[in-house]
Amino acid sequence: MKQILSGLLLILASLWPAMHQAHAADALPSWNDTATKEAIVGFVEKVTTPNTTTFIAPKDRIAVFDNDGTLWSEQPVYVQIAFLIDRIKLLAPQHPQWQTTQPFKAVLEGDMDTLVHSGAEGLLRLVAATHAGMTSDEYHQLVRDWLRNARHPKTNRPYTEMVYQPMLELLAYLRANGFKTYIVSGGGLEFMRAWVEDIYGIPPQQVVGSSLKSKFEFRDGVPVVVRVPEVEFVSDKEGKPVAIDQHIGRRPVMAVGNSDGDLQMLQWTSAGDGPRFGLIVHHTDGEREVAYDRESKIGKLDRALDQAAQMGWTVVDMKNDWETVFPDN
Amino acid sequence: MKQILSGLLLILASLWPAMHQAHAADALPSWNDTATKEAIVGFVEKVTTPNTTTFIAPKDRIAVFDNDGTLWSEQPVYVQIAFLIDRIKLLAPQHPQWQTTQPFKAVLEGDMDTLVHSGAEGLLRLVAATHAGMTSDEYHQLVRDWLRNARHPKTNRPYTEMVYQPMLELLAYLRANGFKTYIVSGGGLEFMRAWVEDIYGIPPQQVVGSSLKSKFEFRDGVPVVVRVPEVEFVSDKEGKPVAIDQHIGRRPVMAVGNSDGDLQMLQWTSAGDGPRFGLIVHHTDGEREVAYDRESKIGKLDRALDQAAQMGWTVVDMKNDWETVFPDN
Repeated sequence: MKQILSGLLLILASLWPAMHQAHAADALPSWNDTATKEAIVGFVEKVTTPNTTTFIAPKDRIAVFDNDGTLWSEQPVYVQIAFLIDRIKLLAPQHPQWQTTQPFKAVLEGDMDTLVHSGAEGLLRLVAATHAGMTSDEYHQLVRDWLRNARHPKTNRPYTEMVYQPMLELLAYLRANGFKTYIVSGGGLEFMRAWVEDIYGIPPQQVVGSSLKSKFEFRDGVPVVVRVPEVEFVSDKEGKPVAIDQHIGRRPVMAVGNSDGDLQMLQWTSAGDGPRFGLIVHHTDGEREVAYDRESKIGKLDRALDQAAQMGWTVVDMKNDWETVFPDN
Repeated sequence: MKQILSGLLLILASLWPAMHQAHAADALPSWNDTATKEAIVGFVEKVTTPNTTTFIAPKDRIAVFDNDGTLWSEQPVYVQIAFLIDRIKLLAPQHPQWQTTQPFKAVLEGDMDTLVHSGAEGLLRLVAATHAGMTSDEYHQLVRDWLRNARHPKTNRPYTEMVYQPMLELLAYLRANGFKTYIVSGGGLEFMRAWVEDIYGIPPQQVVGSSLKSKFEFRDGVPVVVRVPEVEFVSDKEGKPVAIDQHIGRRPVMAVGNSDGDLQMLQWTSAGDGPRFGLIVHHTDGEREVAYDRESKIGKLDRALDQAAQMGWTVVDMKNDWETVFPDN
């Protein structure tokens, strides 16, 4: 009986991908039938068809995604910055020195230009001030509590509804085809881990981000790992391929981003042998989202856009390629 | 048709674990029928039986394993040290300053005491000197070439045959029960990644180890990630829970080690809520392997052994619990 059942199971399991693949196009209903969708589906079918020269073994099907501006909206300000601003304001009475120290001063004065200009390092100083001494669990709880109540300044929707529906579908489509989907973001590692499993289906071990150092200690006799206010790693620009090599240890076959911060990740992915796929989300839709690229302070897309044609990267024209931008309420 | 097939598949898939579980004991043939094996199987059955208070969801089934002395032999010297010694000797003519600089001097003079005493930091300086400027792929190739020809000084077998057969079975048994198996070792990350997927079935993204910093650069127009001679992280003792929190982002439910270097990983794993399993490999078999614990320079097991009873950790008595130690030729 066991042998018959296991034989049947193997036969059915082998039929399953074929049945599934035939319906691949349905997996991306929020993508219009343009060349972009065709390129994505073409790549996935090409690398998952056995006994071809372009077949990629499941263990090598690694896809890396930037987060801000690629999986969810980053305008008018990175969501993590909105969180940090609220947090810094809440804690400011206990830290009078923040009135005169950057980037805290910029936060308290609402000086977004200075704040954005302080970059990933400045962001990590804010993270350090609001995260140090906490365990990951404690920090995750803070982030989740904030996300439940915070609203996007323009749409008044929770930030977790400002994710891109076509990208949710792309993540699921890739996973259904044996890909492991990773986030590789300049944003804070623990800020993302607090919610990305629920929203994107990406588990914590597949999240790579900027991080603080930690230490192991006993707190009231209980062993804990707590953050210390010192930058461990900035996972942006050149830091992205470095973080991928360190954390994943395989070169991705697919990289998805939206800004020059993703350029090196795209370059490094494309330089591998065999089929590779680079995808750039170009924010062309000023009506349903925000139109921005070369001149934007947040999510500047300039050099990566210039290199796209030469490198064979596919560029998403958000306005024309996406039937829907955000999930329905 | 598709619906019928998928329905059948789901039914069969749901029967599969039950059929499989009934034969769990067969999965560990190199383990004698002692209390140790009973404890392991009891834990796995307890946490994989649905609709019980002890059930652990598959996503939380994280098991972490030390490598040296836990998955393969670490006596008379860590295998990575043997590799580094051969490598340093090969490169020494081009580095005259090594004759007078530790830990290189110790290597060239065969002074193992000084070498072992230089610890993980000393080891990483040797790694830095032999790895810097290389990509991961280049380093993996060096390690694989060396492993093909190197032989264990006592048994004359390839080091990759000095792995513990009962632990190979335990890794496979856990994976068959939905666990993700990770290595968390003080040893070099890339030294392990070169071979552990072939030997243990553990993919590179599930290997955590001590590491050097890297940089992204263009080499003859090709983007590469290369190591720089600077220590990034030492994944030993207190570093193990820190590395787990950073890399995996979930607290393991099972930790397996063999020395005081694994104590903090065991403590941190055990401090989580719900069922937890700590396992310590005690090297009690002087005939088939090497008997050592409290006084050993390599793989010293002292404090962790003292705490085992109080913490409820299971201790493997290698001599009595293992029917076989190494795989058959």
